[in-house]
Amino acid sequence: MVATATRRYAIIGTGAIGGYYGACLQRGGADVHFLLHSDYDHVARQGLVVESVAGDFALPQVQAHRSTATMPPVDVVVIGLKTTQNFLLSDLLRPILGPQTAILTLQNGFAIEDELAEWVGDRPILGGLCFICSNKAGPGVIRHIDYGSLLLGQYSRDRQPAGVSPLVKAIAQDFYDGQVSVDLADDLRLARWRKLVWNIPFNGLSVAMNATTAEMMADPDIRQLAEDLMGEVVEAAQQDGEKLSPGQGRHLPADLIAQMLTHTEQMNPYRTSMKIDFDQGRPLEVEAIFGNSLRAAQAAGAGIPRVEMLYHQLKAIDRRLRVDG
Amino acid sequence: MVATATRRYAIIGTGAIGGYYGACLQRGGADVHFLLHSDYDHVARQGLVVESVAGDFALPQVQAHRSTATMPPVDVVVIGLKTTQNFLLSDLLRPILGPQTAILTLQNGFAIEDELAEWVGDRPILGGLCFICSNKAGPGVIRHIDYGSLLLGQYSRDRQPAGVSPLVKAIAQDFYDGQVSVDLADDLRLARWRKLVWNIPFNGLSVAMNATTAEMMADPDIRQLAEDLMGEVVEAAQQDGEKLSPGQGRHLPADLIAQMLTHTEQMNPYRTSMKIDFDQGRPLEVEAIFGNSLRAAQAAGAGIPRVEMLYHQLKAIDRRLRVDG
Repeated sequence: MVATATRRYAIIGTGAIGGYYGACLQRGGADVHFLLHSDYDHVARQGLVVESVAGDFALPQVQAHRSTATMPPVDVVVIGLKTTQNFLLSDLLRPILGPQTAILTLQNGFAIEDELAEWVGDRPILGGLCFICSNKAGPGVIRHIDYGSLLLGQYSRDRQPAGVSPLVKAIAQDFYDGQVSVDLADDLRLARWRKLVWNIPFNGLSVAMNATTAEMMADPDIRQLAEDLMGEVVEAAQQDGEKLSPGQGRHLPADLIAQMLTHTEQMNPYRTSMKIDFDQGRPLEVEAIFGNSLRAAQAAGAGIPRVEMLYHQLKAIDRRLRVDG
Repeated sequence: MVATATRRYAIIGTGAIGGYYGACLQRGGADVHFLLHSDYDHVARQGLVVESVAGDFALPQVQAHRSTATMPPVDVVVIGLKTTQNFLLSDLLRPILGPQTAILTLQNGFAIEDELAEWVGDRPILGGLCFICSNKAGPGVIRHIDYGSLLLGQYSRDRQPAGVSPLVKAIAQDFYDGQVSVDLADDLRLARWRKLVWNIPFNGLSVAMNATTAEMMADPDIRQLAEDLMGEVVEAAQQDGEKLSPGQGRHLPADLIAQMLTHTEQMNPYRTSMKIDFDQGRPLEVEAIFGNSLRAAQAAGAGIPRVEMLYHQLKAIDRRLRVDG
């Protein structure tokens, strides 16, 4: 597959994330098939538009599908759905998985790849961590507000660092050709922990305290809470790394928390993805971001009581959202 | 003072708590002076009305005061203000404190008596824990909804159990004569910890999760959180007792948490006092209930991260309430 000149991609979920990165892949020359739901008619006729801080672009013609049944088998499946819809994945992916199809999930959270590994056989699994602010502005219109880089890494079933394989490099090149800034992670699991150091406090508190990043940083108590939560995640990552790879120094840098706090203070006021879901009455990604990391921390022997408390609060908020909604 | 036939009381704050218990004291024959603010004109003319589950009663004539300056010195000062107004106390009490005046605080929280001890000299200090649902229904009208008992104990400056003094018994008798069900605590500090086992989770979560007791108990995640928080308070009480009185077994019963959960499940749906303050936009008693107990736990070497997290959340909510209000 790696040697193929033009790789074929399926974008499962053409929203703020899948729509943006899928459009970039097509712009770079890849053969991209988009799965659409409510926007199918519009996109089949008029294509996709990306309104981007880095420059708007339009794809008047895209290969739009209502169902994966009409797609050919692909080289790479890109998962852009919310994790709350993961129960749909095995049915959605069945028609397009060839024996060597790679699965790249762009989803937030932890252990997303472990769940895929349970049913995709020995096909390669990759994780892509998206550092982007984007949303869907209308049918077929993606608004790219800020950032946009992608951190790509390969999953290994023994949870050890997979290094950077030729497959990862080839896929990275496709994104790069589409003008996406790509970094490569040789230790995807550690990269996911690192992203959780930010996502757990700021996604969680943005909903539990109903606040933007700027409001959280401006309140001394919420800022303190964010810092305490970050400390727990760093500790969990440390113990997880030590349990899986004793003595190998799989841990996060000492100044990560201070760096992230400074960065968050300086960034534009920002509604986190969980806050946007909350405001729009959509199910919250509580299990993917909080439940899975909590369970991994516990399995590694790390007590993270504040993360656990936030998890319970978010579960209750999510439950209420579904009952009221 | 104990031998006086009729004791003279000053009720500082004639609201849901001070108004109810003050009215009961007068009904029982005590000489009661009420401090009033916005209701003064109404109460000076028409007295107080208690609409009570245990039977309504009216006091057409009460000794109403706009200021403590018009009151005589009293035998017992009863503090019924919210702790958020405690900065007013030293000025309010100065005119009515005789050399042997006792100070009885009916306020929620922890270390309330320690704060009084800093400026009332060697006058006796008592704490009264109110197990009551009541509110102010209108000018001079107290609505007594449920429960109503009072747990009285004397404070000792060395924080050791004070036992039951003749003074406590005499004051208890006055309440009893007013048809209040009174219990006596020989260890006021332990009694306060015990009440916090309920107040910390249910007051705190009722505001942080915006819910009644029934809603909290019906949600498995909030119920779990309540139980986890209760466990931390029991642990703090244990370590505080051990630090102050090594080997003296000053601790709470093992089945207290299970008992309280069962009881809370069975009680009528209830808005906690902090939830009522929140709903009415009043300052929250965060420091008295959470800050003081957190600091006492930390001084005793008990880590209570969930209580600490709830404290920070409530501080932020309270801060926002004051800014928006």
